[in-house]
Amino acid sequence: DPERIAVIPGDGIGREVVPAAREVLEAVGPDFEFTEADAGDAVKEETGEALPEETRELAANADATLFGAAGDTAADVILPLRSAVESFANVRPVRAYPGVDAPNPETDLVFVRENTEGVYAGHESEIAPGVTTLTRVVTEAASEEIARYGFEYAAERDARVTIAHKANVMRTTDGLFLETARSVAEEFDVAYDDALMDALAMHLVQRPEDYDVVVCPNLAGDVLSDLAAGLVGGLGLLPSANVGDERALFEPVHGTAPDIAGEGVANPSAAMLSTAMLLEYLGYDDAGQRVRSAVTETLASGPRTPDLGGDATTRDSTDAVLSRL
Amino acid sequence: DPERIAVIPGDGIGREVVPAAREVLEAVGPDFEFTEADAGDAVKEETGEALPEETRELAANADATLFGAAGDTAADVILPLRSAVESFANVRPVRAYPGVDAPNPETDLVFVRENTEGVYAGHESEIAPGVTTLTRVVTEAASEEIARYGFEYAAERDARVTIAHKANVMRTTDGLFLETARSVAEEFDVAYDDALMDALAMHLVQRPEDYDVVVCPNLAGDVLSDLAAGLVGGLGLLPSANVGDERALFEPVHGTAPDIAGEGVANPSAAMLSTAMLLEYLGYDDAGQRVRSAVTETLASGPRTPDLGGDATTRDSTDAVLSRL
Ligand SMILES: CC(C)[C@H](C(=O)O)[C@@H](O)C(=O)O
Ligand SMILES: CC(C)[C@H](C(=O)O)[C@@H](O)C(=O)O
Repeated sequence: DPERIAVIPGDGIGREVVPAAREVLEAVGPDFEFTEADAGDAVKEETGEALPEETRELAANADATLFGAAGDTAADVILPLRSAVESFANVRPVRAYPGVDAPNPETDLVFVRENTEGVYAGHESEIAPGVTTLTRVVTEAASEEIARYGFEYAAERDARVTIAHKANVMRTTDGLFLETARSVAEEFDVAYDDALMDALAMHLVQRPEDYDVVVCPNLAGDVLSDLAAGLVGGLGLLPSANVGDERALFEPVHGTAPDIAGEGVANPSAAMLSTAMLLEYLGYDDAGQRVRSAVTETLASGPRTPDLGGDATTRDSTDAVLSRL
Repeated sequence: DPERIAVIPGDGIGREVVPAAREVLEAVGPDFEFTEADAGDAVKEETGEALPEETRELAANADATLFGAAGDTAADVILPLRSAVESFANVRPVRAYPGVDAPNPETDLVFVRENTEGVYAGHESEIAPGVTTLTRVVTEAASEEIARYGFEYAAERDARVTIAHKANVMRTTDGLFLETARSVAEEFDVAYDDALMDALAMHLVQRPEDYDVVVCPNLAGDVLSDLAAGLVGGLGLLPSANVGDERALFEPVHGTAPDIAGEGVANPSAAMLSTAMLLEYLGYDDAGQRVRSAVTETLASGPRTPDLGGDATTRDSTDAVLSRL
């Protein structure tokens, strides 16, 4: 049976970069069956729902989903989609690409972010007038799963692991996260340390080259990966994977870019690099590597879209990647 | 009556930089009465308590407290001290100093961090085996107080305000924080905007010069201010104030620096800049400005301690500041 790929372009430049990335997926050939569905501001405007049940189910049943971006409704789309695919790990490689201006070109690290709990478990209430609470949840099971994923990922790449936490303040919850990650570490022959997330924020700015794989609680991963994106020139080129056991969801980290949406000049690289991760997730390592190389070459040698100082269109850039596959 | 200043050197280089800063305080003259007390790893070793009740009470009754640093017990010392002085605002100016190597010398901003609640309210439990929770608390009262402090601070300096939050995920708690800060903003003629803390982390790395005063929930302020410290070369030179209505606590942001502790070469600048904030808090604006100028000049022209590439001692550096007052 062909593998089922759900395609959810979303809003803004999602509608330009996702079709471009799909062309690349089709070109490298595995026998995929694509189905497209809507999510985001536009469909909410029409139907009242940012994530129609049909779209959610499509993702929940596909082998992999390629998502673009959503506007104001981003949280209403991406958080339920992450749970629809039962993703436990949000994987974000952050690196400077050759030929692209980066404040710190030595940055090359991967965030492995817990993707189900922490403050995202989201139990909130107003317990008295003007007094609100949120219940942050950390479980041993989820901590173990994300730590094991991070250490396996590092082991395959001969990389080091840093466990991020704030266990000096969140002693019970991040204490459990840290302690669990440390016991998982014992099963691996991987060098590791741990770091308070505040100190880590400073060190990432100063010496990103000291870090390889950073295993983080959910919100810490959200903030630290965006910080690191700043070191390589922004979110524009960064892919990500929301990994589950049976299925997964891939998305460029960038947003809808309303300023350029509809002009046909969006940079499709991040969406294409996300498809490289998708291919690898499904076991097509060679195809994934071909896509990554073609995108990297195109970033280095052009043609380049306006965000990188060129005047190529999304079409030009896509053709260049296709010809380099 | 003379103003009562509690002096708590703590551990490591706290024991070197706090006495140096006290000399500077004494030199600029207001009629202060100093009392010293212990806190930190060393006193815990001796007595079993990182923050002896006597020290806590001293801070709780002083007009202002100057604290150095604590080692492994940092959280056990600094968090109760912050509440002993009933501090609601943690104020952290982050700027590059002339003559000091900074990755981004245009950085010049001030974090105004909520200092009482958020995840620091710290209600944690293991509600089932392997399942832990932390109750994050956000109140309208504390949000209003920190926002008003931030906007007043900005108004006095003709500065802009950015309200940091993660209200797209923590909708009720950070929603309350954001909404409250926005209504406070209406009372002021100060330009402001708000930013998701993840996006803000990226923008601070890319364009710190776009920000002036950043009003933050507690943990966001912890992480973002350390991030910004990375942009100016680290925590080494940064002062901070924990401001309450009746009293306040001042501390360099750096730690105990065990690698150089006891050698007499610690850089006393951050502790001295903290005393400048102390003087201003107590209404001695001219004296505060004199201290800040003398420290800034010494940073620019030397003598310099080894952390800044020189070979001056703490004594040399202190003498230089004293002579420039
Ligand atoms: C849109 C938002 C809910 C999301 C998150 O916080 O995870 C985004 O910041 C991200 O990192 O993908
Ligand atoms: C030591 C720790 C509890 C403290 C905090 O988290 O506030 C520190 O990181 C700080 O910023 O002063």
